[in-house]
Amino acid sequence: MDSASRAYDVVVLGAGPTGENLAERTRSAGLTTVIVENELLGGECSFWACEPSKALLRPVVARADARQVPGLRHAVQGPLDVPAVLAHRDKMAAYWRDDDQVDWLNSVSVDLVRGHGRLDGPRQVVVETADGPVPLTARHAVGVCTGTTTAFPDVPGIERVRPWTNREATAARHVPDRLIVLGGGVVAVEMATAWQALGSHVTMLVRGNHGLLSRMEPFAGEMVADSLGACGVDIRFGSAVAEVVREGDEGPVRVILSDGETLEADEILVATGRAPHTANIGLETVGLTPGDWLTVDDSFLVTEVPDSWLYAVGDVNHRALMTHQGKYQARIAGAIIGARAQGQPLDDGKWGAHSPTADSAAVPQVVFCTPEVTSVGLTTMEAEVTGRHVNVVDYDMSGIAGAVQYSDEYVGKARVLIDVDLGTVVGATFVGPGTQELLYAATVAVANEARVDRMWHAVPAFPTISEVWLRILEAYRDGALSESPRR
Amino acid sequence: MDSASRAYDVVVLGAGPTGENLAERTRSAGLTTVIVENELLGGECSFWACEPSKALLRPVVARADARQVPGLRHAVQGPLDVPAVLAHRDKMAAYWRDDDQVDWLNSVSVDLVRGHGRLDGPRQVVVETADGPVPLTARHAVGVCTGTTTAFPDVPGIERVRPWTNREATAARHVPDRLIVLGGGVVAVEMATAWQALGSHVTMLVRGNHGLLSRMEPFAGEMVADSLGACGVDIRFGSAVAEVVREGDEGPVRVILSDGETLEADEILVATGRAPHTANIGLETVGLTPGDWLTVDDSFLVTEVPDSWLYAVGDVNHRALMTHQGKYQARIAGAIIGARAQGQPLDDGKWGAHSPTADSAAVPQVVFCTPEVTSVGLTTMEAEVTGRHVNVVDYDMSGIAGAVQYSDEYVGKARVLIDVDLGTVVGATFVGPGTQELLYAATVAVANEARVDRMWHAVPAFPTISEVWLRILEAYRDGALSESPRR
Repeated sequence: MDSASRAYDVVVLGAGPTGENLAERTRSAGLTTVIVENELLGGECSFWACEPSKALLRPVVARADARQVPGLRHAVQGPLDVPAVLAHRDKMAAYWRDDDQVDWLNSVSVDLVRGHGRLDGPRQVVVETADGPVPLTARHAVGVCTGTTTAFPDVPGIERVRPWTNREATAARHVPDRLIVLGGGVVAVEMATAWQALGSHVTMLVRGNHGLLSRMEPFAGEMVADSLGACGVDIRFGSAVAEVVREGDEGPVRVILSDGETLEADEILVATGRAPHTANIGLETVGLTPGDWLTVDDSFLVTEVPDSWLYAVGDVNHRALMTHQGKYQARIAGAIIGARAQGQPLDDGKWGAHSPTADSAAVPQVVFCTPEVTSVGLTTMEAEVTGRHVNVVDYDMSGIAGAVQYSDEYVGKARVLIDVDLGTVVGATFVGPGTQELLYAATVAVANEARVDRMWHAVPAFPTISEVWLRILEAYRDGALSESPRR
Repeated sequence: MDSASRAYDVVVLGAGPTGENLAERTRSAGLTTVIVENELLGGECSFWACEPSKALLRPVVARADARQVPGLRHAVQGPLDVPAVLAHRDKMAAYWRDDDQVDWLNSVSVDLVRGHGRLDGPRQVVVETADGPVPLTARHAVGVCTGTTTAFPDVPGIERVRPWTNREATAARHVPDRLIVLGGGVVAVEMATAWQALGSHVTMLVRGNHGLLSRMEPFAGEMVADSLGACGVDIRFGSAVAEVVREGDEGPVRVILSDGETLEADEILVATGRAPHTANIGLETVGLTPGDWLTVDDSFLVTEVPDSWLYAVGDVNHRALMTHQGKYQARIAGAIIGARAQGQPLDDGKWGAHSPTADSAAVPQVVFCTPEVTSVGLTTMEAEVTGRHVNVVDYDMSGIAGAVQYSDEYVGKARVLIDVDLGTVVGATFVGPGTQELLYAATVAVANEARVDRMWHAVPAFPTISEVWLRILEAYRDGALSESPRR
């Protein structure tokens, strides 16, 4: 140990939402904790992902909703006020300042070292700060919460054309006239939705033929593709990009497809996937390979590192790449680190305080597009792959009184998966307007392993969209969809 | 028994949602079933309550939401398109025709007799039809599902001024310039919200000083009163009306208050309560008092009538006056009648198929105003009255990232009640925009008796308003509200 090394019980690398929550939880468990961050406290989520992207998307979704409301639709046919949307986005990204986060960190008594942190052997971290290297020693745990960065696809020229990543796509100050989006996942869909509504002509190039949002139920991607197409987005599935070039610094981007066709745009967004942010954090000093995902056990210990001190929490462990799930993991990992430091046994109950069971059973996701896409738990494909025997119950949400009240042009679809042996709700997907807050009921059901026969007593209010659950239960009971009274 | 009497296993009086569902369930249980209705099939809910009122309110709520969205708010400052709203309302009330309901009734093989039905001794019903009286005999059950009507307050002159009830308030074809609303409950609040937004100058006269929505958590009524006041509604608590007069057929209504002040309006809405619709259904022929609520046991048998044949389901039994709860009761009552007819024992498990446990534990309610008000399960007052020991956890929803994304001017408040001994969620109230679909998660939690420690595994997606649950859990864990990271 470096004699000048500052010792803490816990050292956290990375101050995104996961790192912040982990640090707060270990501190709350009575452990001295320091957090290391080279960029803004609050991380990708606060400044270049969730917060600014949802700020761009909320006006789009609200306008789409309002356009389906009689008595209001006449007023909202025109364009959005783009400068107002961008100014709002700036505000929701806290003007890319982290003062509030610093205040919060102080309020919970977590120390901060600003600079690039690297592991330097077991329990050791060195931070390159503006004032030189600061060595840190962790008595109990180092928590790696460095998240992910854009994974660039293997396309010749892509890194030389100043492509947009999620960062530029969420922080851009001007609306490109033409935008090409590489990818068909959540970031691609959300940013295509936002920039199209803000005025860009958007072309999506999607490798393969698995549709949009290919990890979700297939109907989700199909409905979103229909909607984006109707808005004027040109979606090309099975696209193979041969090369990308930009003429000079200011010229347009040219995308040459394998079949020889050339597309031109003002900007190109790379949204084909995420890579672990581990290339330059000293993994080699503890026997790991830089750039790898960090595989962890259910207590978030990195499995390849001995002596129970290195934890990886959040996106970087590749369990479930979502802010809320990173926070969930951080709460549990913090409790685990606290218990171990105090020599207490872990609560090994399946749904106990030290078991991240939701990571495999009940991960929720909301895609903020039009229509909204929300899901939790198993998909049909996941049930098949894992050999889980489920009943799949579908319902056309346009038949629900509450949906028709929300919009008399309502288009939506629900799917609920029910474990055949247990009779419990194990997954749900909803696609349709107004489903953003609908999802949590499904999450509560899945996480509580709610039985279908009990769900009959969870009465949805009339007329809300939530009455989809009544229809799902009826369809399940009857073994098939049948005509039901509207109320 | 009249020799010409038509015999059915089950006779249902009243074809609102409750009666329709009861008939469908008994028919589905293999019992021949006839339903009797003197007005439109679909009842109050379809034509003079839920459906048309929500059709009037959806544009109001959607405009209020849109006005808080940067980039969109500029477009929605003007008035609603009133003719479009009223035309939409007409459509949502199915133009006051019940053809679809007749088709549905046929599709489920339930017979219909149109006319005024009255009990005529045990198991006997006589229907006054256009073609004369039709006697019906019920082999197993008569189900009274006649619901409620407006209860007129004891105000001299009130019945002579052509007052609006819920029927006129939801079906009116013109916007009164001045509207006086008597009452401060759900109907009063919703209709004040709708007609104010459609252009009326609204004055609410509320007896007593218990605020609006006095059966819900007090903060709900306070927030709604603030919002209505800000929109220009004049709310007068503690108002005592001495007399009401209308000058001629077309003249204005004058309301003379006890203190001598006189208010003038074009229409007056009576929304001070509901009375059981039992005055003229032959209750006296089976030993009951016409006009009374029908008290039932937990199998929906009317307790004062022997021989287990007379059931009362829905609003008329005064357990929980809401469409969705009437439907819930109807499903259970239908199953009970079916089981008894087949000589099967009832499932007496607390949450079994024959136990309407949600009636006392988990009744949801949504008030469609601005802000939306939603609740399920116990209120603080109900917990006190029933001696239930609960922790009350409050949270200011304006601090939730998802709420700020919904509106950067978000004002909302949540309260969750947790049983101290069991650690389970037993009640919840949310007041704020976008909470309509948020409620069902609370309903699922309450109906599943979800434990707080399990709720930590029900992860709300970031950034949704549902993250209020995370904040509630944190506040409960910490024993008080404390500053938390925003994400």
